[in-house]
Amino acid sequence: MEIFKLETCLSPSMFHRYDCEGKIVVIIDVFRASSAICTAFHNGAAELIPVTQVEEAREYKRKGFLVAAERDGFVLDFADFGNSPFNFTPEKIEGKRIVYSTTNGTQIIQLTKKSFRTVIGSFLNISALTKWISGEKKDVILFCAGWKGNFSLEDTICAGAFASRLLESKLYNTICDSTLASVDLWKTAEKNLSKYIDKAAQRNRLREKGLDDCIEFCITHDFTNIIPVVEDGILKILKHS
Amino acid sequence: MEIFKLETCLSPSMFHRYDCEGKIVVIIDVFRASSAICTAFHNGAAELIPVTQVEEAREYKRKGFLVAAERDGFVLDFADFGNSPFNFTPEKIEGKRIVYSTTNGTQIIQLTKKSFRTVIGSFLNISALTKWISGEKKDVILFCAGWKGNFSLEDTICAGAFASRLLESKLYNTICDSTLASVDLWKTAEKNLSKYIDKAAQRNRLREKGLDDCIEFCITHDFTNIIPVVEDGILKILKHS
Repeated sequence: MEIFKLETCLSPSMFHRYDCEGKIVVIIDVFRASSAICTAFHNGAAELIPVTQVEEAREYKRKGFLVAAERDGFVLDFADFGNSPFNFTPEKIEGKRIVYSTTNGTQIIQLTKKSFRTVIGSFLNISALTKWISGEKKDVILFCAGWKGNFSLEDTICAGAFASRLLESKLYNTICDSTLASVDLWKTAEKNLSKYIDKAAQRNRLREKGLDDCIEFCITHDFTNIIPVVEDGILKILKHS
Repeated sequence: MEIFKLETCLSPSMFHRYDCEGKIVVIIDVFRASSAICTAFHNGAAELIPVTQVEEAREYKRKGFLVAAERDGFVLDFADFGNSPFNFTPEKIEGKRIVYSTTNGTQIIQLTKKSFRTVIGSFLNISALTKWISGEKKDVILFCAGWKGNFSLEDTICAGAFASRLLESKLYNTICDSTLASVDLWKTAEKNLSKYIDKAAQRNRLREKGLDDCIEFCITHDFTNIIPVVEDGILKILKHS
């Protein structure tokens, strides 16, 4: 049986140390981009167009696109809504192409251009995504989005949850310290995930801004079977069996 | 009572996210630079002169200095010895100024120039260093050297051991996810440190090169009370009460 390689990158600042060519990259940004993207597709969005620059998002708005855009957790004044998964309701977004600009997540997509596939992972789609990965027979990089180039606890424990499942399948092995650490942190966290996540810095940043209403939702397992995938720079639903 | 801030940086790739001005920075490179430096001073070295370039080390050798120099774990041909703590024996080094060039550790020192004090931390001097830090009344950054810009498990758990002690003293608090993670990893690791460290990638890299004879020594607590400090770019023994 062929065994595939599993690695974890704990922050975009370290992604230059990883070679993603030919590999599956799973981008994880639990609070809140990954969770919002999974929810948007679950609720019927047709496409999400990631943009990094505010001006680019504003230009799309002028052209009539729906725009989800925030910086540092605050909705930009010209945008239709921000980055909470709760914004992406079916009545607003069904069948729509949505321009999506965030502080962090969208910039990261561009780092993974050479991958075999770049997909979006969260607790919301963990089982479906793990199952799909396991069928692909490829090396895997779990890529934590972190916070402004630094480590974030919630993305790391989510990576650890993915890594635990993949390693248990015996299809993967790892010699990557980041993977080992994320698995151990997940084992500590999973005993009481809500309580554990409560200490994460990003959770506190969201609370200060009154944006923490979606936290419990973001750590819900298997809300959806949808796997968002990046194709030619656009987020779409991955067609899979 | 004034409370001071504790942060942890998990890799040099993320150090640009930290402002070390006026703070104590503890550089941690368990396998093997921190451990070797602590041992060198314990065994009587007068000064260690860190150099980043091989040619610079070679030039010092020509001038008659003792030179400890390796790249990727291998001793350079012109050097007197390499980076194992076991090389720094009293008969070789007592009273000497030693030029010290390594793959990783020495380059990191230069990143911390603006600190109040940059000191070298390891399991070997954990109690003495924790005691000194606690008396200084300064914010603290635990700076994991990692491996070629990436995360390393052994440095992170050592940072977690320092952080656990500092946080228990109630003199420090943290809102830093990296600190929280390192403390949790330490709590997992400390139950059986030898076994835990056995899975770290760097440990395996050293084993492949036959350089793992010092691993047990490097995780020994409190071998020395010496605190190495950087002064004008040179490593010396910190004079403290």
